[in-house]
Amino acid sequence: MEVLNRHVSIRKFKPQPIPEKLLDSILFSGTRASTTGNMQWYSIVVTTDPAQRKKLLPLHFNQPVAANAPVLLTFVADIHRFSEWCKFNKAVPGYNNFLSFFTASIDALLVAQNVCVSAENLGLGICYLGTTTYNAKEIIGTLNLPELTFPVTTVAVGYPDETPELTDRIPLKGIVHHETYHNYTPTDIAELYALKENLESSKRFVKENGRESLAQVFTDIRYKEADNRFFSEKMIKVLREQGFLE
Amino acid sequence: MEVLNRHVSIRKFKPQPIPEKLLDSILFSGTRASTTGNMQWYSIVVTTDPAQRKKLLPLHFNQPVAANAPVLLTFVADIHRFSEWCKFNKAVPGYNNFLSFFTASIDALLVAQNVCVSAENLGLGICYLGTTTYNAKEIIGTLNLPELTFPVTTVAVGYPDETPELTDRIPLKGIVHHETYHNYTPTDIAELYALKENLESSKRFVKENGRESLAQVFTDIRYKEADNRFFSEKMIKVLREQGFLE
Repeated sequence: MEVLNRHVSIRKFKPQPIPEKLLDSILFSGTRASTTGNMQWYSIVVTTDPAQRKKLLPLHFNQPVAANAPVLLTFVADIHRFSEWCKFNKAVPGYNNFLSFFTASIDALLVAQNVCVSAENLGLGICYLGTTTYNAKEIIGTLNLPELTFPVTTVAVGYPDETPELTDRIPLKGIVHHETYHNYTPTDIAELYALKENLESSKRFVKENGRESLAQVFTDIRYKEADNRFFSEKMIKVLREQGFLE
Repeated sequence: MEVLNRHVSIRKFKPQPIPEKLLDSILFSGTRASTTGNMQWYSIVVTTDPAQRKKLLPLHFNQPVAANAPVLLTFVADIHRFSEWCKFNKAVPGYNNFLSFFTASIDALLVAQNVCVSAENLGLGICYLGTTTYNAKEIIGTLNLPELTFPVTTVAVGYPDETPELTDRIPLKGIVHHETYHNYTPTDIAELYALKENLESSKRFVKENGRESLAQVFTDIRYKEADNRFFSEKMIKVLREQGFLE
């Protein structure tokens, strides 16, 4: 499917805003995604206001794309609204637990991907900001998110001002397993990651960072164990504060 | 976007299998989705073998759709493959933590939704099975999933043998928030859930189950607190067993 197969993340946008009707149209396509029990345990917070953008920027580690895009969409796992509906209808909600949080996250992420596909189909570009879970606590404060909500991802959207090439992917046979999971031999792994390792940009990263392998660039610099542990603890603490681990 | 806006879950499929090339095409579109750091922390397990189907069926609570679809796709958060690559390349992976698990889950879910959109675009029908996280432990056993993997969702796929109507959704204004989260008054909630509450099927559920409101059907019968708590504890235990909570 062309719109899916030609996807590239856009990190440089034209200054022009997204017309309200166009934005509504892509958000509407989001809401057509499947959700558990059709309960729609998600919300979408639209950020366009410069003051709000300025507050969110450092929470996304000042990534240029977060400053550059005319719109940021924060996808929120949201059981607050549904629980309010329960309370207003003589029903006792029992969704302040981890399974429910994860279910709501699934809902929010399927919606997010629908929104992205719809946006790209209409000529917009998108970039996911994986930083959302790192600074969920501060994003919750900035967006005024209530109990039983949690921001799971953010998407920067706008009119593309660059045309990047397709990025590398592991060949399909390295991703797909038939009937049961097949384990990987060192030879399998070498073959599956060869394309990535042999990119000019990869070789440059390894050299510039004085490393022995591309994998070391990931483990020692880009996605370090110490950071992962720090942000894991922080995320679990926020889940507790938001009422999801009662 | 038509393919997104006309989405309905299909629970009755024709017996005809999905041609291998067609299946590969939709899975390939899945792999074009964005993932954190382009690390592709997911795998897809394809189930077509009747013996495997028979084992999975009770794990999905014998939902007829799980018996009925020619193909089940289990989307797996997978940091095993990436960690193997690290180990084979003198790098020490530090991904046995909660943040990394959640990151891998995001990856797997964006891929799943791309696969679903691509499938529907090519005339196939899909249904998500939310039961995957409930019985992750047993699914891990059946699919032989290694450490640092976790099945996050399953999609039943095949040629539709029914044409259901579009299902209800909360109006867009009930989902979208501008700049900050707007809370909901009882009047807001009543308005947003009116469509769902007034469906003939909803009224029948309430009556047949002797309840006072549709919300009670959800809290007392369909998504009960006791079940959520039981499966939350089970899921957290499995995350620990799979090495994600070190």
